[in-house]
Amino acid sequence: MEQSGDEWQMIVYVNGKWVDEKEATVSFLDRGFVFADAIYEVLHIYNGNYFKLDLHIERMQNGLDKLRIPFRAQDLIPVFEELLTFTPGLEEGMLYVQVSRGTAPRAHGLPVLDEQSVVAYVKPLQPDRRIGEQGGHAILVEDLRWQMCNVKTTGLLLNAMAKQEALDRGADDAFFVRGNVVTEATSSNLFIVKNGELLTHPNGPHVLPGITRHVVIELATKLGIPVKEVMFSKDELLAADELFITGTISEVSPFLEVEGQVIGSGQVGPITRQLQAAFRQETAL
Amino acid sequence: MEQSGDEWQMIVYVNGKWVDEKEATVSFLDRGFVFADAIYEVLHIYNGNYFKLDLHIERMQNGLDKLRIPFRAQDLIPVFEELLTFTPGLEEGMLYVQVSRGTAPRAHGLPVLDEQSVVAYVKPLQPDRRIGEQGGHAILVEDLRWQMCNVKTTGLLLNAMAKQEALDRGADDAFFVRGNVVTEATSSNLFIVKNGELLTHPNGPHVLPGITRHVVIELATKLGIPVKEVMFSKDELLAADELFITGTISEVSPFLEVEGQVIGSGQVGPITRQLQAAFRQETAL
Repeated sequence: MEQSGDEWQMIVYVNGKWVDEKEATVSFLDRGFVFADAIYEVLHIYNGNYFKLDLHIERMQNGLDKLRIPFRAQDLIPVFEELLTFTPGLEEGMLYVQVSRGTAPRAHGLPVLDEQSVVAYVKPLQPDRRIGEQGGHAILVEDLRWQMCNVKTTGLLLNAMAKQEALDRGADDAFFVRGNVVTEATSSNLFIVKNGELLTHPNGPHVLPGITRHVVIELATKLGIPVKEVMFSKDELLAADELFITGTISEVSPFLEVEGQVIGSGQVGPITRQLQAAFRQETAL
Repeated sequence: MEQSGDEWQMIVYVNGKWVDEKEATVSFLDRGFVFADAIYEVLHIYNGNYFKLDLHIERMQNGLDKLRIPFRAQDLIPVFEELLTFTPGLEEGMLYVQVSRGTAPRAHGLPVLDEQSVVAYVKPLQPDRRIGEQGGHAILVEDLRWQMCNVKTTGLLLNAMAKQEALDRGADDAFFVRGNVVTEATSSNLFIVKNGELLTHPNGPHVLPGITRHVVIELATKLGIPVKEVMFSKDELLAADELFITGTISEVSPFLEVEGQVIGSGQVGPITRQLQAAFRQETAL
């Protein structure tokens, strides 16, 4: 980032070059553009440091391996470090990184290409913590997504459509329901509290293995809150004592209403508050 | 296309400009690149003319409407016409066109943008008609794709992965199986012949409403071949008398083996040959 007048000019890393965002482009044949053949990550920067960098790199590598994209996620770390130097004094921010298979004449199949296509940038983040503090409202949408939700590719159209449906209906987010099972939110994992226990959908093809999900499970375990990674139904969701989502940007955010039905007491619950406090401590790097 | 030495230089239409393919780029924030938030079409050019242009435009418009991208597919027709002028004398070729929602700071939801992002190009095509003449071999793969396969978006990664799996296993293509129902091939629809009847998966969320599929159903009906748009199982597929795929590039292509099992007589069947001849006549514009 360089300040010019009132406008921040974002510097973007594109395939080995550092360019102004206006000049940051990829080929029309980039397989990320043509086939959604790309893996991405979003990292949260707290006090100038990447939160859980190692876990993001590990998940990215898993995704690249699954897609057979011959790229070492670890090689991105120097790029991430250099990106921070463009925003000196940055306290809170986010990094976006996307690696696509590369550029090739359009054909199905997975070509082995010499160069992958890498885009990465950092921007300051002033997350809207209103939901975190006051709680949000959600709608339910049918989960028509593919069964590879555990791989963080750019095939996100249904996530975007569900989010828009939520906004159109005056809600904050949408929760996906596959059959009768509640899976996750449009860009966050989902937890319910019932009788003092924390429940969340098990990892597998229907949910993203969230980093914040992982951190919250660890924190809960430390705090002596039992955690069950099990599927739960729409009815169980609506009958929960507490409900919150977890994500790199959403952190730990309570939801108090789903499809107009009040969850639990209608107030942010004590276990949610406890986990929010523990998470805040964890991120105070 | 302009000839320079031995190399054809492809001219690409990108957002109102005609550029050399090396300079044909889109923003790193193009929603096609970041969210697979884009609709595309591939058209076949026979004798210098677009085949079934009206049907492709109609399908593209349906897709854009479904995604709420405010763009008139018809406005592309002058672009398509101009693209042909770059390849004078082109007999057989293909056009690729992609319209994405446009460029915006990355956020879920569907922003209403003033400008969509359009990429289009034409290239000569010498399709490999080996499979059309001699028949192909296919594998079966589990259909883990989303349930919006009737919308022609760029979210094609599982199609590309399935095609690669076929190539790795020495086959020509993969057929998707959802539950026990055979849906379609990686970029073509699927037909079987049983007891003189033609069967193909009904239109709906699990298959693309193929233009060639549509043409073949019309041709079959004219020829007095009964057509049933019904689901069929893996066992019914393997017990078929004849089997072929249909697509803009694959046209009408018989398959003689699936997962190593011979279909019917193991030879290209008479109904397939009849439909191939009728299709060839239809495309002899």
